[in-house]
Amino acid sequence: MTSPMTSPMTGPELHALVERLYPICRSITGDGVRATLEIIGEHVPLKITEVPTGTQVLDWTVPTEWNIRDAYVRDATGRRVIDFRESNLHVVGYSVPVSGTYTLEELRPRLHTLPEQPDLIPYRTSYYAETWGFCLRQETLDAMDDGPYEVLIDSTLRHGSLTIAEHVVPGQIEDEIVISCHTCHPSLANDNLAGIAVAVGLARRLERPRHTCRFLFMPGTIGAITWLALNRDRVDRIAHGLTLACAGDPGRLTYKRSRRGDAGIDRAVTHVLKDRPHDVVPFSPYGYDERQFCSPGFNLPFGSLTRTPYAGYPEYHTSGDNPEFVTPAALADTLETLWQVTRVLEGDRTLLNLSPYGEPQLGRRGLYGSLGGRSDTKQAQLAMLWVLNLSDGEHSLLDIARRADLPFMAVEEAARALQDAGLVKELA
Amino acid sequence: MTSPMTSPMTGPELHALVERLYPICRSITGDGVRATLEIIGEHVPLKITEVPTGTQVLDWTVPTEWNIRDAYVRDATGRRVIDFRESNLHVVGYSVPVSGTYTLEELRPRLHTLPEQPDLIPYRTSYYAETWGFCLRQETLDAMDDGPYEVLIDSTLRHGSLTIAEHVVPGQIEDEIVISCHTCHPSLANDNLAGIAVAVGLARRLERPRHTCRFLFMPGTIGAITWLALNRDRVDRIAHGLTLACAGDPGRLTYKRSRRGDAGIDRAVTHVLKDRPHDVVPFSPYGYDERQFCSPGFNLPFGSLTRTPYAGYPEYHTSGDNPEFVTPAALADTLETLWQVTRVLEGDRTLLNLSPYGEPQLGRRGLYGSLGGRSDTKQAQLAMLWVLNLSDGEHSLLDIARRADLPFMAVEEAARALQDAGLVKELA
Amino acid sequence: MTSPMTSPMTGPELHALVERLYPICRSITGDGVRATLEIIGEHVPLKITEVPTGTQVLDWTVPTEWNIRDAYVRDATGRRVIDFRESNLHVVGYSVPVSGTYTLEELRPRLHTLPEQPDLIPYRTSYYAETWGFCLRQETLDAMDDGPYEVLIDSTLRHGSLTIAEHVVPGQIEDEIVISCHTCHPSLANDNLAGIAVAVGLARRLERPRHTCRFLFMPGTIGAITWLALNRDRVDRIAHGLTLACAGDPGRLTYKRSRRGDAGIDRAVTHVLKDRPHDVVPFSPYGYDERQFCSPGFNLPFGSLTRTPYAGYPEYHTSGDNPEFVTPAALADTLETLWQVTRVLEGDRTLLNLSPYGEPQLGRRGLYGSLGGRSDTKQAQLAMLWVLNLSDGEHSLLDIARRADLPFMAVEEAARALQDAGLVKELA
Repeated sequence: MTSPMTSPMTGPELHALVERLYPICRSITGDGVRATLEIIGEHVPLKITEVPTGTQVLDWTVPTEWNIRDAYVRDATGRRVIDFRESNLHVVGYSVPVSGTYTLEELRPRLHTLPEQPDLIPYRTSYYAETWGFCLRQETLDAMDDGPYEVLIDSTLRHGSLTIAEHVVPGQIEDEIVISCHTCHPSLANDNLAGIAVAVGLARRLERPRHTCRFLFMPGTIGAITWLALNRDRVDRIAHGLTLACAGDPGRLTYKRSRRGDAGIDRAVTHVLKDRPHDVVPFSPYGYDERQFCSPGFNLPFGSLTRTPYAGYPEYHTSGDNPEFVTPAALADTLETLWQVTRVLEGDRTLLNLSPYGEPQLGRRGLYGSLGGRSDTKQAQLAMLWVLNLSDGEHSLLDIARRADLPFMAVEEAARALQDAGLVKELA
Repeated sequence: MTSPMTSPMTGPELHALVERLYPICRSITGDGVRATLEIIGEHVPLKITEVPTGTQVLDWTVPTEWNIRDAYVRDATGRRVIDFRESNLHVVGYSVPVSGTYTLEELRPRLHTLPEQPDLIPYRTSYYAETWGFCLRQETLDAMDDGPYEVLIDSTLRHGSLTIAEHVVPGQIEDEIVISCHTCHPSLANDNLAGIAVAVGLARRLERPRHTCRFLFMPGTIGAITWLALNRDRVDRIAHGLTLACAGDPGRLTYKRSRRGDAGIDRAVTHVLKDRPHDVVPFSPYGYDERQFCSPGFNLPFGSLTRTPYAGYPEYHTSGDNPEFVTPAALADTLETLWQVTRVLEGDRTLLNLSPYGEPQLGRRGLYGSLGGRSDTKQAQLAMLWVLNLSDGEHSLLDIARRADLPFMAVEEAARALQDAGLVKELA
Repeated sequence: MTSPMTSPMTGPELHALVERLYPICRSITGDGVRATLEIIGEHVPLKITEVPTGTQVLDWTVPTEWNIRDAYVRDATGRRVIDFRESNLHVVGYSVPVSGTYTLEELRPRLHTLPEQPDLIPYRTSYYAETWGFCLRQETLDAMDDGPYEVLIDSTLRHGSLTIAEHVVPGQIEDEIVISCHTCHPSLANDNLAGIAVAVGLARRLERPRHTCRFLFMPGTIGAITWLALNRDRVDRIAHGLTLACAGDPGRLTYKRSRRGDAGIDRAVTHVLKDRPHDVVPFSPYGYDERQFCSPGFNLPFGSLTRTPYAGYPEYHTSGDNPEFVTPAALADTLETLWQVTRVLEGDRTLLNLSPYGEPQLGRRGLYGSLGGRSDTKQAQLAMLWVLNLSDGEHSLLDIARRADLPFMAVEEAARALQDAGLVKELA
C-alpha cells in the first residue's frame, strides 16, 4: 500500500469529496460502504476489515448484509411516484425485498413523511426489526390517489460482512490519537460526509507525528461495537479520541466533552476553541460513537466535535442535508480547528524548571529585553515566565497555557527557548 | 394503639387541622402541648414521652412545667384592656403568677409592643429567666391612661414534665427518615401548626416504606435537646432528616441545607425543588431544630424545609400569623413536595451495569424503538442510556437524574426496566 | 539601635515621607538607596546588609555599584536641554559615564520618549547591558535642532555593594509575617515611595505582635534574589507574606493572590477587602517581588497588595508618578487595610467546642438574651452560634468568619467570650 499524500486539502477540495460521495447509497453494511471506502482510499491508504455476518461482537451480532438495486411505488400510469433512483432516502434502510400491488390505505403505515417539513424526505432505518417502507415528501403523499400502486423493493439481506476501514499514520510513540467517523448514512452531506472529508483532510496534513494517529471509518454503533470487540486488548493505547460528525454546516463549532469530563482531549479542544465562536456541552450518552467509546467499561477519553450538534438543525436526517447545506468555508474551518487541536496534543508535555529558586537571569542568556522600565511586556517573555513558574512537575504546557490565558503555541515556543537554554528539561 | 390511617389529606383538610389547633395555648411544657398531641393522635398514632422537670439533658435541664388559666390587665371600670382570653399571645410565655395593682408607669417595662406594626400583638417568651409581662398592640398601649390597673396572671410553674411525641412508620430497613416539627408555639398558624399539619399529612400518605419513617412532635430547642439526649445511641440510624416549619404561607419553598452541605437529603430536596419556584440557602446555626441536629457533635444530615423562611415575613411571631395567613393550596404544595422528596429518598439506590462494554443491544430486549433516524428520542430511552452509562458503582440513581437533568422518577422507571431485563443489578 | 516608635502615622505624615524621599536618585545599588534607608531609619530601626559586587546569589551575580553626580545634554548656547538636576528620570538607570559631542542624529537612538504622552519623561534602566541614554519629554525632543550637543553623564560603575535593610518586630512565636517593598526606583512616588511609607506606617503601629513581623526594604528583583539567597534556610519561618507597592494612588485596592492561590494570606486579605471597593486577581509571574518569593522552588505564601496595579495607570513609570499623584487619604486607607489584615493574621486560630452535642445553654452563662421570640438576633449571638457550630477542629476563626459572612473581629470577640466561659478551647 503506497501513500498518495500530497498537499493539504482546501475547503473546495473537501467539498468536492463530499459531493462525490453524496450519491452513494450507504448503510451499516453493503457495497455502498465499500464504494465509499474506495474513494477515501484514493486520498489516504486504508486497511479494510470485513467482519462476517453472525460474528458476536460484545453484546451484539453482526447482521446480514443489505444491498439494494432499485425501488419504487408506481401508479396506474406507470409513473414512479416514489423513486429510489431520485434519492436513496426514499427507502427505509434495511428494507426487506417486496414486490406487489397495494392500495394507498394498505401502504400508508409504511410511508414516512415530515408533516411540518412537507418538501423534505426523511431518513429512516430498521436494522434489527425486519420490515420495509418508503420515505417521501408530505407533498407527494398529499397528491397520491387511492391507488392501487405497484410496489418494488429490489433488495437483498444475505450472509455477508460488515466493512470497517482504518488509516494509520505511525508515530514515534505507541500512544494513539484516534479520529472516528461514521460511514453508514446514505445521501446525507453534513451527517456524515463532512466528517469523513475533514478526517481525510487531517490525515493528509499529518507528517511524522509524535503520536500514532488512527482514523476509523466505520458504520455507526455496530461499527464501533465491532471495532471495540476486535481491539479490546489494545484500547489502552488510546491517549486521545474524537468522534467527528456534522463537520460542514455553517453553524459554530460544538464540542461535547468525554465521559471523563476533563481528559486531555477535553482540555485541548476547549483551549483551541476559546478564541472562536463555539459551544461546549457536557457528555451525554446519546449522539455518535462516543456512546460506545465512553461506555463505562471502556470509558475512553473520547470527545465529539461537530458544528451544529446532533439533531440541532432542521435539515438533520432529511433530504435538506445535501451538499448545498455544507460549505467549503465551514469544512476548512473545522479542519483548521482539528489541526490546531492536534498540534496541542502533539506539543503538550511536562517540563521541569532546573533553576526553580528565584527567577533565572534570562537577560544574560539573551532571552529577555535589556531595557527595563517598559510596561509593554512582550507575550514571549510573559510565556517564558509562566513556563518557568509552573514547570514544577505538576503542570503540562497546556495547563500553563490555560492558566496564563496564552495561546498554546506561544507557550510551546517559550518552552523550546528555555529548553534550548538548558533552563528546563522534559520529564521522562 | 390502632392506626387511624385513611386517605391522603387534602389542602382544606390540612388547613382545618391548623384551625383546630390554633386556639390552644402551647409552650415548651404544659397541658397545651398535651391537648395538641391528643388532636394529632386522632390522625396518626403517637408514642408520648414525659420527661420530668430537673432531668439533665445534654448541657440543659428540663425546666418546671408552666400552665396558665387566665390573665388580664383591667382598668378602673373593670374592662379587660389586655385579655388572655382574646389571644394567648398577650402573655409573655412562662410568666410567673402575679396579682396586684400597677400604674401604667410601673407596668410599662413589662409591656411589649411592635411600634412599627401597631395593630399586631408580638409573641414573646422568657423560659429560663423568671419574669412576667404582657404583649399588646401599640394601638392599645397608646390608648391606655395612667392607671392604676388591676393585673392578674393566673399561671403555675411547678415540677412536672416536658412532653414529646413520636409517630413511627416501620420500614423494611432500620435506616430512618426523620421529620421533626416544633410544637411549642401558641396561637401562631404558619409557625408551626402548618409544619405539624404537613407532617401529619405525610405520615398519613406513607404505606409500607423502605426506610423506617419517624415523625417527631416536640418543643423547639429543649425538646430536640431532650430527644437527642434520650436517643443519643440511636442517632446513627438517621439516614435523612428534615425540620419542617412555616409550611403554609403563600411564599415559595425554601430549603436550608444541612451542615454537611451535600448530604443525601440536600441532594434529594434540591433535585425535587428544581422545577418549582424556590430558594436554597446554605446551612446556618440559627433557625429551627436543625441547630441541634446539626450541632458539631451530632452533625446529622438534617436540612430544613419551609416556605418563606424564619423571620422572613412581617407576620412572623405576631398575631398576624393566624389561620388566614396560611392557605390550603400552600399546605398541599408543601405536602406534595415533601412526598416527592420521600419518593426520591426511598427510590434512590446504586446499580451496576452488567454489560458495561459498549451499549447493550436494547432493541432485541424490547427496550428501544426499532425505527431509527428519528430525532425525537423519548425520555424513557434517554433515561435508560444514562442509567447504563453511569451505573459504574460510583453513581446512584439520584446522581444520574441530577447529571442527566431528568426527573428522578423517569430515571427510576428506566432503572427498573433495566433491572427486569437483567442488564443492571443492585449493589449490595 | 533604639526604637523611635511613637504614635500611628496619619495620611498627611505618610505623604510627607513620600515627598521627602522623592528627590533622591535611587537605583538597585548606590548612595541613593543608602540615603533613603537613612530617612526610613529615623522612623523604624533598620538592620542594614551590604552585599559586595560579584557575590553569587542564586542564578544571579550582585552587579557593580552605580552612582551618578550629574548629567546633561547642552546645546550650542550652553543651555541644558536635558538636565539631570531637573529630574533624575532623565538618565537611563545604570548609564555608563560619557562625555562628548554628538549631533541629534547620533543621539537619537539613545533618546527615549513617550510619543503618546508628550509632556511626560519615561523611566528606563539598563542594569545588565552596558549602555547609556537619556529619557525626555517628546515635546523637548520635537524642539531640538540638529545640534551638535555637548553630552555628559558623570556616573561611576565600580566594585561596591548592594544594600538591603530589614526592620524586625519580635513576636511571641517564630512564625513570621513579612512585608516587602522595593526601594530601587528613583523619583517615582506611587511606585514605590508609597509602598515604603505604608510599610513604615504599619511597622510603627505594631505593638508586641504574636507573629514576628519582618519588613524588607530592598531593590526589586536582585534585592529579593539576594535576600532569598542569604536566608534560604530560614524561609520556612514565613507564615504570611506581602509585597507592597503602588500604595498611594486614588484607585481602589487590588490584591493579587499568591501562587498557592488559597494560602492564609490570600484568605485574610480577601476577607478584609470584602466590604471595600477592590479587585482580586489571580497570581501571575509578573509584577513585583512576589515573582521571586513565589518562584516554584520557594513557593512562599506571598501575595501582593497595591492600589491600581502594576502598569495599570497612565502615570506608571513616568514623571507623572509624582507626589501629587499620591494622596494622603489613599495612603491612610492602604495602611488601615493592611492593619486589618494584620489583625486577622494575628487573631486567627482554631478552637474546639467542648460542648459539641446540641447547643450549650448560653443563657445561663449570661451569653444570650433572655427574652425569646424576637427576630432581630444580634450579630454577637449569631457569631457565638457560628463559632460553636464550626469549632470542630476543622475550621479556624477566619474560616468561620468567611462562612458566616461576618466581620472577623465579631467572630474573634465571640470566640473570646466562649473561651472565657470555658465552652471552647484553643487547639494546641
